[in-house]
Amino acid sequence: MALPVFSFAQTKPYLTLADAERITAAAEVKAKAEGWNVVIVIMDDGGNLISLKRMDGVQVGSIDVAQAKAKTAVFFKRSTKVFEDGMKAEGGGRIATLPNAIAVEGGLPLLKDGIIVGAIGVSGVTSAQDGIIADAGVKGY
Amino acid sequence: MALPVFSFAQTKPYLTLADAERITAAAEVKAKAEGWNVVIVIMDDGGNLISLKRMDGVQVGSIDVAQAKAKTAVFFKRSTKVFEDGMKAEGGGRIATLPNAIAVEGGLPLLKDGIIVGAIGVSGVTSAQDGIIADAGVKGY
Amino acid sequence: MALPVFSFAQTKPYLTLADAERITAAAEVKAKAEGWNVVIVIMDDGGNLISLKRMDGVQVGSIDVAQAKAKTAVFFKRSTKVFEDGMKAEGGGRIATLPNAIAVEGGLPLLKDGIIVGAIGVSGVTSAQDGIIADAGVKGY
Amino acid sequence: MALPVFSFAQTKPYLTLADAERITAAAEVKAKAEGWNVVIVIMDDGGNLISLKRMDGVQVGSIDVAQAKAKTAVFFKRSTKVFEDGMKAEGGGRIATLPNAIAVEGGLPLLKDGIIVGAIGVSGVTSAQDGIIADAGVKGY
Repeated sequence: MALPVFSFAQTKPYLTLADAERITAAAEVKAKAEGWNVVIVIMDDGGNLISLKRMDGVQVGSIDVAQAKAKTAVFFKRSTKVFEDGMKAEGGGRIATLPNAIAVEGGLPLLKDGIIVGAIGVSGVTSAQDGIIADAGVKGY
Repeated sequence: MALPVFSFAQTKPYLTLADAERITAAAEVKAKAEGWNVVIVIMDDGGNLISLKRMDGVQVGSIDVAQAKAKTAVFFKRSTKVFEDGMKAEGGGRIATLPNAIAVEGGLPLLKDGIIVGAIGVSGVTSAQDGIIADAGVKGY
Repeated sequence: MALPVFSFAQTKPYLTLADAERITAAAEVKAKAEGWNVVIVIMDDGGNLISLKRMDGVQVGSIDVAQAKAKTAVFFKRSTKVFEDGMKAEGGGRIATLPNAIAVEGGLPLLKDGIIVGAIGVSGVTSAQDGIIADAGVKGY
Repeated sequence: MALPVFSFAQTKPYLTLADAERITAAAEVKAKAEGWNVVIVIMDDGGNLISLKRMDGVQVGSIDVAQAKAKTAVFFKRSTKVFEDGMKAEGGGRIATLPNAIAVEGGLPLLKDGIIVGAIGVSGVTSAQDGIIADAGVKGY
């Protein structure tokens, strides 16, 4: 008699801790070069933490902000700057009613061949500077 | 002496799971025809889930957004587009302070003879496209 | 000059909506055969919903309970019955202090070659009966 | 006339990110030596994250559990094993009603001359094993 079998043959790429550490290191190099202290967060494709690093002297609030940015970038597959720009363009708060969406630059999705594998979230300086550090993480990897 | 008796004779229409599945199927037919992957949620008249279906590849954030849209449509007995249009017209965030109200198109109440029986919430593409799929669910039923 | 490149070469199996629907259908067949009305939830490996179905007449509380069971099974890679049995054996509440852990049978992880791909959560009847339905979903797939 | 002046002359020791990374590294060395994959969390004396690292393959639930352990160790200035032992001794759940207290081994306070500077939280294997790794972090520093 044939036993039922899980096939689940389909596969998708994912981030390892080593990946997360390389991305974080690239972001941290840029942060230090600029003298900007920040929290750097890497999440997986389900919005769950892989790593978090808070540099000395960073405001405590940035711990949750950096996580919110990474979560938004994973959950909506886009830079949080898209939401920031959208709110400015609309002159209003429609996007503020979206659950799990933070409209502040500094969160970027991590993609492999168009498939989301996670995100980086940075917070600690201005949102534009946070975005520069996040970008260094993505590019420098 | 007659004792007081609760009669509770009055009735109200309500959604069954079979109803929810027919509405979802109609919405899904439209979604597939357009090539739009979305989350489709049906809630009852208490704002509690009857069904949820996430098509492959949809951003994770749409799971909560679709539920927020359905809940808003039930809780306020109106299309979430009414709130979206209201925020645009006001040029501000007054509506953003309303508990349980999301101001993004894609949530529609389900009515039977003017009585609310539940709602559909759709999220995954643009809010206008989400609205088209939600409408197909309501109409196609 | 060499451009930085995301390698992310590693891959993992994952559940599709079609998988979720097959598992749910197998569970529902068992539920109907027994005359047990339940909520059936399927989550992905990040603890995010793929599908939810509430059969008619099920207590509203089971909507969240079924999700909590599925989330526990994903988050801790084990049957929620392990926690239920553990609490009984200990005669105490140590496990009750674990975040995201529900100690009530009815949640089972879904595994592919030892890798977690998601979970099923069932709630609506007794926890032992919920467990039978969840098992039917896993086995009948 | 002399104006009143806040002096705030007193100081307290505190953890730097470099400290957190050294403690984490010592814990990770032990974890790898034993083949135990875990989440390692370091918090400051306010119960706020300094760093978090999730090794590959660790159950998602351990992300919150490790944070809960570190927070408990900071908030109550004691090993979480004290609460675990207390619950076992009492045979009941009195401790389960304490806010921010997890009664599972694996969280240890970090002290400097009797003053709390933070905590380490470890989760991923058995609570006794988690405790061994946390201890290696504290001792190996």
